[in-house]
Amino acid sequence: MSKISTQQFQEIVENELQWADEAGITLDSIAEGKAIMRLPFKENSLRPGGSISGPHMMLLADACMFAVVLSILGEVKLAVTTNLNINFLRKPTPSDLLGEGSIIKMVNRLAVLEVTILDSSTMKTVAHATGTYSIPPAEAP
Amino acid sequence: MSKISTQQFQEIVENELQWADEAGITLDSIAEGKAIMRLPFKENSLRPGGSISGPHMMLLADACMFAVVLSILGEVKLAVTTNLNINFLRKPTPSDLLGEGSIIKMVNRLAVLEVTILDSSTMKTVAHATGTYSIPPAEAP
Amino acid sequence: MSKISTQQFQEIVENELQWADEAGITLDSIAEGKAIMRLPFKENSLRPGGSISGPHMMLLADACMFAVVLSILGEVKLAVTTNLNINFLRKPTPSDLLGEGSIIKMVNRLAVLEVTILDSSTMKTVAHATGTYSIPPAEAP
Amino acid sequence: MSKISTQQFQEIVENELQWADEAGITLDSIAEGKAIMRLPFKENSLRPGGSISGPHMMLLADACMFAVVLSILGEVKLAVTTNLNINFLRKPTPSDLLGEGSIIKMVNRLAVLEVTILDSSTMKTVAHATGTYSIPPAEAP
Repeated sequence: MSKISTQQFQEIVENELQWADEAGITLDSIAEGKAIMRLPFKENSLRPGGSISGPHMMLLADACMFAVVLSILGEVKLAVTTNLNINFLRKPTPSDLLGEGSIIKMVNRLAVLEVTILDSSTMKTVAHATGTYSIPPAEAP
Repeated sequence: MSKISTQQFQEIVENELQWADEAGITLDSIAEGKAIMRLPFKENSLRPGGSISGPHMMLLADACMFAVVLSILGEVKLAVTTNLNINFLRKPTPSDLLGEGSIIKMVNRLAVLEVTILDSSTMKTVAHATGTYSIPPAEAP
Repeated sequence: MSKISTQQFQEIVENELQWADEAGITLDSIAEGKAIMRLPFKENSLRPGGSISGPHMMLLADACMFAVVLSILGEVKLAVTTNLNINFLRKPTPSDLLGEGSIIKMVNRLAVLEVTILDSSTMKTVAHATGTYSIPPAEAP
Repeated sequence: MSKISTQQFQEIVENELQWADEAGITLDSIAEGKAIMRLPFKENSLRPGGSISGPHMMLLADACMFAVVLSILGEVKLAVTTNLNINFLRKPTPSDLLGEGSIIKMVNRLAVLEVTILDSSTMKTVAHATGTYSIPPAEAP
């Protein structure tokens, strides 16, 4: 079971992650080690060619990984990303994006996570990210 | 010599990269294969712990790489990122960030680029990113 | 069902991947989109500190991804790695390593794969790799 | 000035990195923060299609980064790779490969490095790698 509810996560977003709040991300569902997050389509997230910009997908990937970390450890707000690698696979259509994040492994104080980013109108994968989060010693499991 | 001026780049940002425009990025200088870009500090880019969020650094890295690509090819707006890898090295202080981007290699229609992200008040490196951009055939050099 | 058997893969290794053959890799099991590969422990794969070297883990990751690609497409020998990203998580003990590879997504002619590398004597994860393979047009699905 | 000579590095290779020794790598030149390393062409390093395998390029990248770390810190044999990301750009011809490694930044106990891999007969870039090395506390600068 997740150590944090979708509502608790949204409160963190509102109070401490203004940029994610402004982007309008919502945590659709959460379970221990899993999270599904939505990034709503906005006109101002487009790039030349009419598709959603890479940085918006990176924002979704990073926020989704953060939710997965909290689902396992509770409110470990000081966990920080140490590496993020993303492959862009297909241009998204102008639609909401979904991030499906999951934990790959928690090793010592390092969490390895992955996020698949889907175009919500075609349900096709548009990007895939892997990341590592470092957990502060006091908050490690 | 750069195939695009800082002013031409800022016009692309204003007209076609609204998210970068809203973040307030400015292209401080550009030469062929090199670009220095600034991301101004804003309260809403913070994350828990008081440092600037990872997605803001990724935004700076990606936009800086885009400027470097245009410095070489001119207004190839349809060039797209295919891979981005970023290592976060040190927490930035609440200051403007500088991205120093350069081309590593242009191979066929693939540009490999790197960006070092510096904290403008300490001039210490806070992150380093590598990325690949795919150039559309019609616009390849 | 896999489009290639473990025996067919071992023949490719013997005939065309001498370096993998010399390393002694064996494909323990294969299904469509999944492969489990073993890299036997050898004294000459050690690095200072007595643990198995990073390049041996990269070799296992890359060969395991290749097996996963062939499990889906059959004998597409000309598929090539375009990006590989690996996080090293824990020092392996001097033991065989296991690579558990799986396909994340096949998008157009690009396969995205991941491999978790386990220490066979502790069954703990020691590394995690993500990679992209480009499929030649004539052999794409 | 490098804190290690090419001869000292070759001794480490012979005594402690047997796999690199068997691959025949030689450190052509070294300066503080810079190293040029050669991987001789061998028939058994080929992959289907007649080009040199990805794992051989990763081996060269990793060993070259190790030399760069030692050029700065001296014989810090316990420095370990924590992340390696490589983009393969062009098929090498059947020739020696050259790795040109350099330090990007040493931050706390984390070294960020890059290696450009060239085909020695065409002098074209065939791959580019970025990596992070973690320096043990006792040996940090």
